[in-house]
Amino acid sequence: MMIHSWRRSGDFIRSACKSLSSFRQKHNSMSPSVSGFVNRYESKGKTFESNAGKGRNTELLDHHHHHHHPCLGGRNMWTMQQYKSFGSSSASKVQRNPLFSSLEPKDVSYFKEILGEKHVVEDEERLETANTDWMHKYRGSSKLMLLPKNTEEVSQILKYCDSRSLAVVPQGGNTGLVGGSVPVFDEVIINVGLMNKVLSFDEVSGVLVCEAGCILENLAAFLDTKGFVMPLDLGAKGSCHIGGNVSTNAGGLRLIRYGSLHGTVLGLEAVTANGNVLDMLGTLRKDNTGYDLKHLFIGSEGSLGIVTKVSILTQPKMSSVNLAFIACKDFLSCQKLLVEAKRNLGEILSAFEFLDNNSMDLVLNHLDGVRNPVSSSENFYILIETTGSGETYDREKLEAFLLKSLEQGLVSDGVIAQDINQASSFWRIREGITEALQKAGACYKYDLSLPVEEIYNIVNDLRGRLDGLANVMGYGHLGDGNLHLNISAAEYNDKLLGLIEPYVYEWTSKHRGSISAEHGLGVMKANEIFYSKSPETVALMVSLKKLLDPKGILNPYKVLPHSFFSP
Amino acid sequence: MMIHSWRRSGDFIRSACKSLSSFRQKHNSMSPSVSGFVNRYESKGKTFESNAGKGRNTELLDHHHHHHHPCLGGRNMWTMQQYKSFGSSSASKVQRNPLFSSLEPKDVSYFKEILGEKHVVEDEERLETANTDWMHKYRGSSKLMLLPKNTEEVSQILKYCDSRSLAVVPQGGNTGLVGGSVPVFDEVIINVGLMNKVLSFDEVSGVLVCEAGCILENLAAFLDTKGFVMPLDLGAKGSCHIGGNVSTNAGGLRLIRYGSLHGTVLGLEAVTANGNVLDMLGTLRKDNTGYDLKHLFIGSEGSLGIVTKVSILTQPKMSSVNLAFIACKDFLSCQKLLVEAKRNLGEILSAFEFLDNNSMDLVLNHLDGVRNPVSSSENFYILIETTGSGETYDREKLEAFLLKSLEQGLVSDGVIAQDINQASSFWRIREGITEALQKAGACYKYDLSLPVEEIYNIVNDLRGRLDGLANVMGYGHLGDGNLHLNISAAEYNDKLLGLIEPYVYEWTSKHRGSISAEHGLGVMKANEIFYSKSPETVALMVSLKKLLDPKGILNPYKVLPHSFFSP
Repeated sequence: MMIHSWRRSGDFIRSACKSLSSFRQKHNSMSPSVSGFVNRYESKGKTFESNAGKGRNTELLDHHHHHHHPCLGGRNMWTMQQYKSFGSSSASKVQRNPLFSSLEPKDVSYFKEILGEKHVVEDEERLETANTDWMHKYRGSSKLMLLPKNTEEVSQILKYCDSRSLAVVPQGGNTGLVGGSVPVFDEVIINVGLMNKVLSFDEVSGVLVCEAGCILENLAAFLDTKGFVMPLDLGAKGSCHIGGNVSTNAGGLRLIRYGSLHGTVLGLEAVTANGNVLDMLGTLRKDNTGYDLKHLFIGSEGSLGIVTKVSILTQPKMSSVNLAFIACKDFLSCQKLLVEAKRNLGEILSAFEFLDNNSMDLVLNHLDGVRNPVSSSENFYILIETTGSGETYDREKLEAFLLKSLEQGLVSDGVIAQDINQASSFWRIREGITEALQKAGACYKYDLSLPVEEIYNIVNDLRGRLDGLANVMGYGHLGDGNLHLNISAAEYNDKLLGLIEPYVYEWTSKHRGSISAEHGLGVMKANEIFYSKSPETVALMVSLKKLLDPKGILNPYKVLPHSFFSP
Repeated sequence: MMIHSWRRSGDFIRSACKSLSSFRQKHNSMSPSVSGFVNRYESKGKTFESNAGKGRNTELLDHHHHHHHPCLGGRNMWTMQQYKSFGSSSASKVQRNPLFSSLEPKDVSYFKEILGEKHVVEDEERLETANTDWMHKYRGSSKLMLLPKNTEEVSQILKYCDSRSLAVVPQGGNTGLVGGSVPVFDEVIINVGLMNKVLSFDEVSGVLVCEAGCILENLAAFLDTKGFVMPLDLGAKGSCHIGGNVSTNAGGLRLIRYGSLHGTVLGLEAVTANGNVLDMLGTLRKDNTGYDLKHLFIGSEGSLGIVTKVSILTQPKMSSVNLAFIACKDFLSCQKLLVEAKRNLGEILSAFEFLDNNSMDLVLNHLDGVRNPVSSSENFYILIETTGSGETYDREKLEAFLLKSLEQGLVSDGVIAQDINQASSFWRIREGITEALQKAGACYKYDLSLPVEEIYNIVNDLRGRLDGLANVMGYGHLGDGNLHLNISAAEYNDKLLGLIEPYVYEWTSKHRGSISAEHGLGVMKANEIFYSKSPETVALMVSLKKLLDPKGILNPYKVLPHSFFSP
């Protein structure tokens, strides 16, 4: 019966893959006409979908704001009650550090002198936008945004701010999810958006050097003309800056294939709190001359320095892409399938995503025009994408792998996308989960890294613990060990939250997981760091922070527990 | 003519590749009977060849020592003259830091108490070995070696040494090339060789967790039984420890494919100078909770802490390996071939090595039984290796790529290995260069990273500058931008050295290269760091050193310029 089901799909496979690689090629050349497929890249790993080139997802944000969705709320965010809704009650306790100065007219005059009038922003409307994160969840009250045009200006700004004890928040595309890129109080905003030049590209080595304010999608478009791709891709690509990507160690789509930014970033230029410019802008794959300092700035969320330039290893663009949608009867089969996929698809495997049946049902119930690509309902679904340079070979390899997996009983059904619409409809299921969750009511969201074999245990344990009080769903980047754990309920309530937290954090900690796989800590989880890091390592982080930024002016109240920096 | 030459090779190709993957499989299962091929892995990227499982290359070392080769010299090393021979005259200026205590009987008693008598080594013969690096180029005068069995003992040792201001040198397999793993004066040696247990292996994620003293080859053998491979492989694998690999950020064979240890090491446990144990031993691919401290310890050569445990991402073993030996008429063709190989071979490319005609001639003149695999002499030779999961496909892909390159005129001749002996004979040329250099007389050796397009310019420039005074050769890991620049002469002389240095360092610096691609700085190049790093970054390195090791007891006189630590 299962084999029969597959065989039908198997027959379908034969003719199914022809045009996928050709439209992927179209996608790679940024054709606006394949927007359905572009969306798949736009929204991956992010909370909301977006459209390429539309800036900060304004459409969706407006939509959500308009409807006063409980996940987003209104604009009066900085209250205890609001924080509790997001499981970050501790963050509401943060107090402005009284050792920081307040902005004075002489400061503004000085900045106008060094940057020019038009790069010193006091306009309320523009500040309103810069003070608010893109989910409208965090909001500061800064009265000043500075727009430096080069490293020297960033250096001058920081040197002055340090001497005056003026706190600052570095800002790029402001697409973060943990409140890391907006002020908490009145910090001066330093937005590097004007520093957006490509400085060099080496077609032999594939090394790109650019300024921090380059928008990820623009870099991708530039590279596309050279036949290369960025080693990272993520939903916010139309807005996020490479400097912000580096500062937050963004994960995204291609991590399973090209690894993290700690491996692909070859060099950085960064400015520390006192205005010192650190030239670590190497373009070499191998350089063992002293401590590799750039890693301090990758993922430290702008709290140790402002990244001003980036050197990154890019990859040749591949012509062949295939996508399969697969059903599995249990999580152990999903695990085994991952092991086999790594072994058999090996060098062409480019994505391995999963969702459970609860997630599938939610999508089917709340999104229009979505159907289950496999004939019968199953407990788990897997998306496998391959990217390679051999069109026929890659396709045959994926087919052979799936047929073998079916014979071994790992897979109960499956289908390979035959064209762009089908591929898009497969990704729509995986990526529509967030949208469906929002339509379903209140939602508690967690972004966890766990050992792959533990990933579904926390879902089952929490399901048992909540005992029908809410709908618990698990999905995410299984190939990277990254679970998106979501709890959907009719409305927010304290009893439910009390059952979820700190249980989820404690469970994650007990299994040596990470409470933030790819989003960072920001202001949202700064005080929760001990769930994932030992006291000794946090103490060393604090020492490093104090070494590089003695007055603590760089992105205060973020990343590290507030208690360490209270006067 | 060229096409004819290739066609012959091309015909040969058809039947040539059959058994290569099968004997690579044998190699991968560590069969001692394929020692010829194993040698290829043994010696890659190292100065001398070695035999698997023979320990610290004693055969070759004894051989060289016996002949009093000028590159190795006798045992009285610590003289100005000797240093000048190696182009490191500044290192001879180092003075013992008088703030360090000298070992006293009470210290030895304390160590015996905590470690047990037999793990406190005072035996002169064993100390002689531990005081001397494997090239017999550096030699310390330590009177004590400690052999901790676990992290707690390492912590106790360091806590005590810090309190007593006793300097220490962490030691693993002692296979380093820059004097980093032996004492300079009387530092206490802490050898982690007894900490050699595999702690866990997860077959789903491929994550291996082990103690720092595990020998790389033993880990490879362990993984082989599971169907996985380490993401690094290097010549010293039979002796080197994973903790030392991490501490020196070892490059090695598989870097072009799997990237550096900054990407593949997922977690570490390290003990800082004061005995603090830092648990950073995560096993997750994604974890953005605070600063990623493990990177401080990757490549800092034991000067910030002693690595005690390692968590590393391993890779599924691939069944298909092919090797081509190719002739190119100029360096620009080599460059273009690299670009095309990355694009066309893409996901299966696993090595891209080059040598120039001077290197080839040297090997042909000085090594027995070596012949040029292509029919006529050319200016450059390239080795391309592919590793993948599709035997027929990979072979056909390599063949198609080479034929296309021939048609495009990038390649003038080439051949694909037909069996283990032929593959071994191809690698023998590339890896025999060092041995041939030693037989040819005096040799000045440099390990440089440069932008790929600059790699051969330094060879040409130096050749012009020396104007026939010596034979200048270039070879190395072209795919990684790593040049081994070697100058061979009848004998060492100051005039020649004066022409080479600081010219080579200055040239490298001017082109933003690295004066140490993969070997580290150790004591040999600690004072030369400014050729590759800016004063601001070195100042920050020194601050980090002083933060983590205020008394400077950890591996003193290494990595950072001595002047910063003089009392």
